[in-house]
Amino acid sequence: MEPVNIGICGLGTVGGGTFDVLNRNAKEITRRAGREIRVSHIGSRSPKTDYDLQQVCVLADVFDVATAPEVDIVVELIGGCDVALDLILTAIEQGKHVVTANKALIAEHGNEIFAAAQEKGVMVAFEAAVAGGIPIIKTIREGLTANKIDWLAGIINGTGNFILTEMREKGRPFIDVLAEAQELGYAEADPTFDVEGIDAAHKLTILASIAFGIPLQFEKVYTEGISHISAQDILFAEELGYRIKHLGIAKRVPEGIELRVHPTLVPERLLLANVNGVMNAIMVHGDAVGPTLYYGAGAGGEATASAVVADIVDVVRTLTIDSDDRVPHLAFKSDCLSDVRIMPIESVVTSYYLRMEVLDQPGVMANVARILSELDISIEAIIQKEPQIKGSEVAIILLTRNVEESKMNEAIAEIESLDSTLGDIVKIRAESLIN
Amino acid sequence: MEPVNIGICGLGTVGGGTFDVLNRNAKEITRRAGREIRVSHIGSRSPKTDYDLQQVCVLADVFDVATAPEVDIVVELIGGCDVALDLILTAIEQGKHVVTANKALIAEHGNEIFAAAQEKGVMVAFEAAVAGGIPIIKTIREGLTANKIDWLAGIINGTGNFILTEMREKGRPFIDVLAEAQELGYAEADPTFDVEGIDAAHKLTILASIAFGIPLQFEKVYTEGISHISAQDILFAEELGYRIKHLGIAKRVPEGIELRVHPTLVPERLLLANVNGVMNAIMVHGDAVGPTLYYGAGAGGEATASAVVADIVDVVRTLTIDSDDRVPHLAFKSDCLSDVRIMPIESVVTSYYLRMEVLDQPGVMANVARILSELDISIEAIIQKEPQIKGSEVAIILLTRNVEESKMNEAIAEIESLDSTLGDIVKIRAESLIN
Repeated sequence: MEPVNIGICGLGTVGGGTFDVLNRNAKEITRRAGREIRVSHIGSRSPKTDYDLQQVCVLADVFDVATAPEVDIVVELIGGCDVALDLILTAIEQGKHVVTANKALIAEHGNEIFAAAQEKGVMVAFEAAVAGGIPIIKTIREGLTANKIDWLAGIINGTGNFILTEMREKGRPFIDVLAEAQELGYAEADPTFDVEGIDAAHKLTILASIAFGIPLQFEKVYTEGISHISAQDILFAEELGYRIKHLGIAKRVPEGIELRVHPTLVPERLLLANVNGVMNAIMVHGDAVGPTLYYGAGAGGEATASAVVADIVDVVRTLTIDSDDRVPHLAFKSDCLSDVRIMPIESVVTSYYLRMEVLDQPGVMANVARILSELDISIEAIIQKEPQIKGSEVAIILLTRNVEESKMNEAIAEIESLDSTLGDIVKIRAESLIN
Repeated sequence: MEPVNIGICGLGTVGGGTFDVLNRNAKEITRRAGREIRVSHIGSRSPKTDYDLQQVCVLADVFDVATAPEVDIVVELIGGCDVALDLILTAIEQGKHVVTANKALIAEHGNEIFAAAQEKGVMVAFEAAVAGGIPIIKTIREGLTANKIDWLAGIINGTGNFILTEMREKGRPFIDVLAEAQELGYAEADPTFDVEGIDAAHKLTILASIAFGIPLQFEKVYTEGISHISAQDILFAEELGYRIKHLGIAKRVPEGIELRVHPTLVPERLLLANVNGVMNAIMVHGDAVGPTLYYGAGAGGEATASAVVADIVDVVRTLTIDSDDRVPHLAFKSDCLSDVRIMPIESVVTSYYLRMEVLDQPGVMANVARILSELDISIEAIIQKEPQIKGSEVAIILLTRNVEESKMNEAIAEIESLDSTLGDIVKIRAESLIN
């Protein structure tokens, strides 16, 4: 059979990794795919000189790659939402299949992209957009296709997980570890996307769509970062038997679907609680399969390339298939997506870790307990820390049972209004992730 | 589009689970597959009366299902190797696609089955044969297709893992926990397949074949069970920072491929070491993706049905594809399988946990150390337990660095021949599973 021609647009970390992996494992990949897959074109303004590009047509303008007649599959690895969107729509318009690692683009413009692809009968594959080398898209979309997915919860931002891991293991403050992560190249100069949860929200948007058969709706994800997490809270959580992880959670509830990214207390005996450093892991709970977990590198040139190349091989394999028989982009046929309500965060039901600084005087804890009780909020555990100096302030740490967020906020406001409460109450959600 | 007709042969735990899941999630599955999948035939001599079988043609002879003209996909869930082999070959002969959960059959007769399927241009899917609901076949075959797989190591027998977990957590002896596992229905009346590693060897055979592109060769798997593991060894391993797990390991080395099932010391900080109870997990290390892990229920009606139904949907999706473009049964094109040497266990290089009972007298440890040193075997850790009664016997626990098994055996024989050594030395392999 004829070789399939790949045009790689963007030769950064992932683009370079993809080029390397396709070359290094060419024999292995051909043995599997049944035909040769070769990089015929590269779009890059400044291709690194340490690649052997003799057999490749290098073009400065990525749009020339997308329109080159010889190219069968366009691989978009330039990132960002402006040029990348134009590029992908151009490639689709030319009847070319597309592979991309661009989570922001898929999360924010995927509905438009997939509609265009469907009209043209081409595929847009995006395994690399979520959790790097872990084949989580394929797993949910194909491996768990028998299941009604109940929920998924994932550590889907390596930078954030590295920071929380270092804070826990070494008791270091957030700001210190962030600086180190930036030095190590794990975090960008502007770390907002990672530490404020935007990157995780992009990925959660995609996962939720393929898990539940709903359109991509990034704007409805509740997003909270980890910059306000203190080493102290990590320690107190541990006393209660929990680890704090920055999770993306998508959950089916009777009234709709919850989509939320926030720091979360997770029982320490769970595998998910023990995923450390820059690694990613996603728990997926299906009604037939029960709890499952998928773990691996969430970033890095070669790990992400692993997913990009898997997508390329998948596309190659379906070149002869009726386009109606292909795995749908978002797992469910586009005319079968359902318009389920996305729950506002105020309606979410979960349990809460609260930490409050209070005056060390009699009756304070009784007052707090009374407020919670009046709002029907049950307490799972309560710890009062001994004051450093007798009669000064003390910390009360509370773990509640499940309660609606709006009610929890009401209780917090009331406790904060007490004269004995000093400053704001720290609130972190907790999830048992059992069923 | 026309519905696809499924014939389920065998209505036991998995067959019943498959029927239930296909019915319960029919709407969800149709939204994904794009066409209706319905159970048209069931082959069972005694179908349970609590199923609603009004719309189904129930036949006592499974061969009548395999030859029924209306059936598109035959689902073999009767187990065993005799009738099941005939049944699958009959279905293939009739030009029908096959889905099976039968690990023994695939491991021992897969080469023959896939050759027949290839000739007829039909698919034989077997996701449910390994690790129940975890989509590990799909993951290795498609998700990690970019990778040269370096090794994989898995907890792929839930019964064995349940027994080792109980032994560790409660300090109970093997024989007690086995009896409990039998009562709970986790272990068969004849537990040989599970506790002696045969079931794991079947699964490892399949995993190794799709990971490395080698033919199925069950007879070459080195297989050792867990019945000789004592609660004491589990405890000593823990002192050294390890857990004992019953692993199936397939590893590419310069001289060939290692295929082995045996109890293994695993560093306790690894996720794999923390997979407890009846759960399964498989680590897969690829050259591009690095280490990954897949976790879930390895058995049970609905979890296994999750894999069976995923296979059914996969087959449905490729009904219109050129058969050459389908994912090859064993991940690599059948004419691309390579005849790599399977290493005899004597040539395997790994580290070892040794426990020996010796006389409590001067010079004993020095003698042991001298024998190891003369054979160039380095010691990673050594513990001598205080004797219960002064002057009686003591236990020496050793952890070696990497050494070839034949050399380790030589050292063991020499140490056992010392007058100061009492009885046989316990030898358990240890793996770091780092890269």
